[in-house]
Amino acid sequence: MSGKFDLITTDGKARRGRIHTAHGIVNTPAFMPVGTAGTVKAMLPESVKATGAEIVLGNTYHLMLRPGAERVASFGGLHKFMNWPGPILTDSGGFQAMSLSDLRKINENGCEFRSHIDGSKHMLTPERSIEIQDLLDSNITMVLDECTAFPATPDEAASSMRRSMRWAERCRKAFRDRDGYLLFGIVQGGIYPHLREESAKALIDIGFDGYAIGGLAIGEGQQQMFSVLDYTPDFLPADRPRYLMGVGKPSDLVGSVARGIDMFDCVMPTRSGRTGLAHTRYGDLNMRNARHATDDRPIDPLCTCPACTSYVRGYIHHLMKTKEILGAMLLTWHNLHYYQELMQGMRHAIEQGGLAAFTDDFHRQQALGDIPN
Amino acid sequence: MSGKFDLITTDGKARRGRIHTAHGIVNTPAFMPVGTAGTVKAMLPESVKATGAEIVLGNTYHLMLRPGAERVASFGGLHKFMNWPGPILTDSGGFQAMSLSDLRKINENGCEFRSHIDGSKHMLTPERSIEIQDLLDSNITMVLDECTAFPATPDEAASSMRRSMRWAERCRKAFRDRDGYLLFGIVQGGIYPHLREESAKALIDIGFDGYAIGGLAIGEGQQQMFSVLDYTPDFLPADRPRYLMGVGKPSDLVGSVARGIDMFDCVMPTRSGRTGLAHTRYGDLNMRNARHATDDRPIDPLCTCPACTSYVRGYIHHLMKTKEILGAMLLTWHNLHYYQELMQGMRHAIEQGGLAAFTDDFHRQQALGDIPN
Repeated sequence: MSGKFDLITTDGKARRGRIHTAHGIVNTPAFMPVGTAGTVKAMLPESVKATGAEIVLGNTYHLMLRPGAERVASFGGLHKFMNWPGPILTDSGGFQAMSLSDLRKINENGCEFRSHIDGSKHMLTPERSIEIQDLLDSNITMVLDECTAFPATPDEAASSMRRSMRWAERCRKAFRDRDGYLLFGIVQGGIYPHLREESAKALIDIGFDGYAIGGLAIGEGQQQMFSVLDYTPDFLPADRPRYLMGVGKPSDLVGSVARGIDMFDCVMPTRSGRTGLAHTRYGDLNMRNARHATDDRPIDPLCTCPACTSYVRGYIHHLMKTKEILGAMLLTWHNLHYYQELMQGMRHAIEQGGLAAFTDDFHRQQALGDIPN
Repeated sequence: MSGKFDLITTDGKARRGRIHTAHGIVNTPAFMPVGTAGTVKAMLPESVKATGAEIVLGNTYHLMLRPGAERVASFGGLHKFMNWPGPILTDSGGFQAMSLSDLRKINENGCEFRSHIDGSKHMLTPERSIEIQDLLDSNITMVLDECTAFPATPDEAASSMRRSMRWAERCRKAFRDRDGYLLFGIVQGGIYPHLREESAKALIDIGFDGYAIGGLAIGEGQQQMFSVLDYTPDFLPADRPRYLMGVGKPSDLVGSVARGIDMFDCVMPTRSGRTGLAHTRYGDLNMRNARHATDDRPIDPLCTCPACTSYVRGYIHHLMKTKEILGAMLLTWHNLHYYQELMQGMRHAIEQGGLAAFTDDFHRQQALGDIPN
């Protein structure tokens, strides 16, 4: 498993690294746009690449239901199917099977559920999750884990985490080890340091190519999330990438990178784009707000994305009010561009030993709320 | 008004020409993608251009209601607002005001209606329609006409047509003549040759830069439409472009070009793209059909659009079934590309004196229904 991750340099707890996959290199800290059903919504894959993204995430739950993992495999895997030649990470399907589906039953063997689309019955076990991700040709496979509810008592969190560790071991056995393909374990344990430590040790004993921190971004708030991130990365080996699942808003990314996280994914920039929210260096702007209707400035005059170089706010506002697809296309592009620029800025700052100053600047600019006059 | 249209060559009744506007040249026969609310739905304007389109259409009715003509003017006109630097044709707003709006009242002065969006009251007169199109900075302005119902008796068609001719004269007076800006009259008269002739003569007396044929594609069927097109172009001057409004499907375009039409617009390729229909040289394919789910061929292996060069039918089918925006984006692009390729093929055929052979090939290929095995 060696040689799949280079730790290039550090700045405090923050890390600048590089993940090697069969489909290319991922510079970390990295943000992964979410391509749920085999498409980063409202974006051509070449546009996703143009934002600076080097890896995208696919959702096992959605793809196993539509069009089906075997179907994707028959087309040569997810890269070919969705025309994204770069690295792909897939989740295990567990989170959505346990949250989106109907009539789910979870036991030691796995999770039985009915599709939220057509009611068909499916069984997701650790072995089947790994098999599906293999059929998808995922470069970074995630172990199936049980999503611990929040809030959970220490006993609930411990019992749930320990089942996840047993599943992690089954996933490790089921995973077909190949060059350029990585398997990540997921640290659980809720907000309890001793459980997070126990979980990390269990995973390290099994041995993974990378370690995710799960069970966050599910309602505990940024402060409590950062508390967990203040100690959990310390339980993890320095020579493996660390992935904070499902996070987050721009300030989440900045605070988490400073705490030693290398990878992120979140639907926020794409989902916000479709609903009219622009993430900018000056904070979030709701483009549906009437004050933008007559504004002849770009969303962000310093941004080099197509939305900002070719369109005024009044036009973006018009597109959102008229529910035009182009509005979703342009705002999604802008948001992904901003997220990637933010990650690029942090990577550069870490290389220069200047992440603290970068973080200060980030918060100062965000506090402005809009372009300064 | 001379020098705005060059008739380069003819092939039978078919014509190969060039329209000169302040924002560029339009080679005819031309198909104009419809950009109703200031966007060709699901397309970036540079992608519209990449399909080969040289001119797009904007809808006065939609733009006068949202964001408002004065608002568009404050942003420097429609070209700047929507980031389409090429020529733009706008309709008069009459057709939608009379068909989409609520509580319309039509009298000699114009059309009073309530917005279908917010119920606000508006008055569209010949003078106001011209003023709005001027505010939009439209390169090709259409006169306001009354949409004659189909079917209509000779008396109804005559009375409606004559009102349209009086409105055409008011439009001509209201139009601000400038280099590179054209005003088109619209021939009405339903399916009655003597009324079409009377209408054409009335418009020629007033004098326009181009002549549209209106009141077709409203339910009369292709055969009856072609009947009208068998004689109506003969009433029009050879040195002015002829525009068949709201038409049509591929076979409509081919049959109409052979009858002397130079310009077309239709929502079909863009609307079809959003609902899953692909127009191809081999006929129309419903990409939602289950037979495409496992198909690893492109929609059309000879097509050079992004949908056909980078994606299999199984993926397009998947995108349509999952209602992903990318499905609308790719199919719209394909359809516009096919329409432009068809126009390009007809322009080339006319130059070579081979439109009859082109038309035969077109019908032979369309009859195949799909890629030949």
